[in-house]
Amino acid sequence: MRELKNAEIIAVGSELLTPHRLDTNSLFLTGRLNELGIVVRAKTVVGDNRHDLAALVTSAMTRADVLLTTGGLGPTDDDLTREVIADLLGVRLVEDQDLVASIEARFRLRGVKMPTINRRQAMVPEGARVVPNHHGTAPGLILEREGRVVALLPGPPRELQPMFDVLAEEVLLPRTAGRKVRRRQVKVTGRSESQVEEVAHPIYSCLGDDTTSVQTTILASPGLIELHLEAVGTDVAAVDRLLDSGVSALAQALGDVVFSTDGRSLEKVTGDLLRARGWRVAAAESCTGGGFLARMTDVPGSSAWVSGGLVAYSNQVKVRDLDVPAALIDAQGAVSEGVAVAMAQGARRRFGTDVAVGITGIAGPDGGTPEKPVGTVVVAVATDAVTVRTFRFPGDREAIRRHSTSAALDMLRRALL
Amino acid sequence: MRELKNAEIIAVGSELLTPHRLDTNSLFLTGRLNELGIVVRAKTVVGDNRHDLAALVTSAMTRADVLLTTGGLGPTDDDLTREVIADLLGVRLVEDQDLVASIEARFRLRGVKMPTINRRQAMVPEGARVVPNHHGTAPGLILEREGRVVALLPGPPRELQPMFDVLAEEVLLPRTAGRKVRRRQVKVTGRSESQVEEVAHPIYSCLGDDTTSVQTTILASPGLIELHLEAVGTDVAAVDRLLDSGVSALAQALGDVVFSTDGRSLEKVTGDLLRARGWRVAAAESCTGGGFLARMTDVPGSSAWVSGGLVAYSNQVKVRDLDVPAALIDAQGAVSEGVAVAMAQGARRRFGTDVAVGITGIAGPDGGTPEKPVGTVVVAVATDAVTVRTFRFPGDREAIRRHSTSAALDMLRRALL
Repeated sequence: MRELKNAEIIAVGSELLTPHRLDTNSLFLTGRLNELGIVVRAKTVVGDNRHDLAALVTSAMTRADVLLTTGGLGPTDDDLTREVIADLLGVRLVEDQDLVASIEARFRLRGVKMPTINRRQAMVPEGARVVPNHHGTAPGLILEREGRVVALLPGPPRELQPMFDVLAEEVLLPRTAGRKVRRRQVKVTGRSESQVEEVAHPIYSCLGDDTTSVQTTILASPGLIELHLEAVGTDVAAVDRLLDSGVSALAQALGDVVFSTDGRSLEKVTGDLLRARGWRVAAAESCTGGGFLARMTDVPGSSAWVSGGLVAYSNQVKVRDLDVPAALIDAQGAVSEGVAVAMAQGARRRFGTDVAVGITGIAGPDGGTPEKPVGTVVVAVATDAVTVRTFRFPGDREAIRRHSTSAALDMLRRALL
Repeated sequence: MRELKNAEIIAVGSELLTPHRLDTNSLFLTGRLNELGIVVRAKTVVGDNRHDLAALVTSAMTRADVLLTTGGLGPTDDDLTREVIADLLGVRLVEDQDLVASIEARFRLRGVKMPTINRRQAMVPEGARVVPNHHGTAPGLILEREGRVVALLPGPPRELQPMFDVLAEEVLLPRTAGRKVRRRQVKVTGRSESQVEEVAHPIYSCLGDDTTSVQTTILASPGLIELHLEAVGTDVAAVDRLLDSGVSALAQALGDVVFSTDGRSLEKVTGDLLRARGWRVAAAESCTGGGFLARMTDVPGSSAWVSGGLVAYSNQVKVRDLDVPAALIDAQGAVSEGVAVAMAQGARRRFGTDVAVGITGIAGPDGGTPEKPVGTVVVAVATDAVTVRTFRFPGDREAIRRHSTSAALDMLRRALL
């Protein structure tokens, strides 16, 4: 019997090809397939078009051990999945009398006579296994061809999800030879994607052993680089050891720009460090407009370590509420190391906290100068001592603000280490 | 010349085949293609796998007039799109010296030497048109084959989006025979999806005439319901009239919960109202932790109408910095109409603004009580007068915080009308 190692998913429905909808069933299915050690090779969304659907199913069946389709099992002319797949596999569609009866019963329960068109949903490709639908009218259908599994599932999540349990338990699990996918994450801040890649590549390209290969993916967003490691195997303990050794090697090579190897966010790691010390934090924010504390307080329970903060969007507020000397602003400018430090110290005094953060910068699109272009951001962290750094972040207003809050979180984290 | 009627999109990247990520670029691209009257036939996500990518590109090129790929243009070994497509089209990859220079310059600007691996991003398939990347290192590449257009775009949205403008304007638009998709948006806050649907359905289901049909989609997120109207035609003026009449009818039926019919966000609408009055706003935030002002200051130029604010995450800060009477907190609790009003008034006094917002609530997951369950949020807006409302928002911490900032923006908007 063919071992099932990989899958493709095809979502059928023209409504999924508008600018407003995403096929989220594939996330559920991917998660559940991965638990069985089945990797998703590709996923596709196709409209209610016989020719396109047939072409995509044909192509997927040359690659995938498991092909899952979602949607296109309704009672209308638009719903083509059953017919197209029966055609491609060269089998007839036959009316299943038990299904007719159960669909009729379903309508009767709601006090409605079954519309004639719903009989289409009782048509079954010859040889298919029928998976009952307890939340709707379209049954699931499972076929096999040359050892490959083809499963037709309905589109609505609450109909599809319980059917997948049946498919997984009875058809897929017995043919996965006990394989499992295991994952790890290494999260980095304060480095660009290529800087991380340059250090990490020599390490992850040598991971893996004779029996197990480790796949690595790098994900980048402003202020955050994630390395995802993934390996498949039957000896879960051995796979875990392999991944853990990879994580250790990467963490050691990358150094203290790695803030998390256990999935925690930068906000959570920083909050945990504050809690461990029994410290509280405050902030004085200018260009980030409250975004730093908004991120700090994203973490449940953060009232234990966040006192509060001041959004000082005007110089007047900086002077009056944070005791930033007006002469300092005149001399160095509002975006300067002196002002950032004075903001952090002012917030620490005002809120009576152990540590405080000051952020001032130019998020754009306007306000830049040749000496201080858009993207210039200064962050200060004040404890009894002070650290301050000037950054020049790339990107638009949103990216610069995101970089700024990430840099501030990271400087706070380092001050707590 | 082949008329461009339909497109396929292939997103490349193994990270998009995990259970945690969706390809959202395809939504942007679909929207923009639709504006050109180009329909999306199918869209696919494929991993960083040479064989699968080649098979899917080959298959798509038999169907689509326009093939867009996103991702896989980075500097690493994983990034295969350039090579695979050059291979399939039978052209060589040649290093483009101008590109090498511009990538080097980009790194220099940030004070970093270009890592050697980034040279890969200067490799161009022979005959391809290069679209410069002003937000990153990978250029876009446009090829044509038998009248079909193949465009390779980078994955990061802010790199891809401006490149699509170039592609649309210079390559696609001249070949769409004047078809246009026109769209309108009606944005609503403070109502649930079903409340909006109940009022809007009788109206939009009757839109359209003999020659043009109007498609309507309802999109819901915490604190925001959007109605999208869409129609296709060559007589743009007629299509616009049809859509405008629909927008008017919907706006009239829904009333003042409609805050925008011109695409502006709630943040922008509220900021524009403040600017029109020459007013400044301040805020005192508890459960939203700075999120309200972070949204207000998302809008470029917001320093003209935002003075600042106080994040009062502890009661002590509320009492000391906002003059909220401690006795009031004891009597009514920190989450109460009295305290929200005192916070708003305290912020207005302290920051000397025309208007101020106070927000206090229970975002969860802990801290709820039978009388004040998680999701209880009180918002006050103080001018010379005061308005205050108590909400009970559904959802998790993130949704409750988002609902809270939306409700505060909306109450501020109404106070300014």
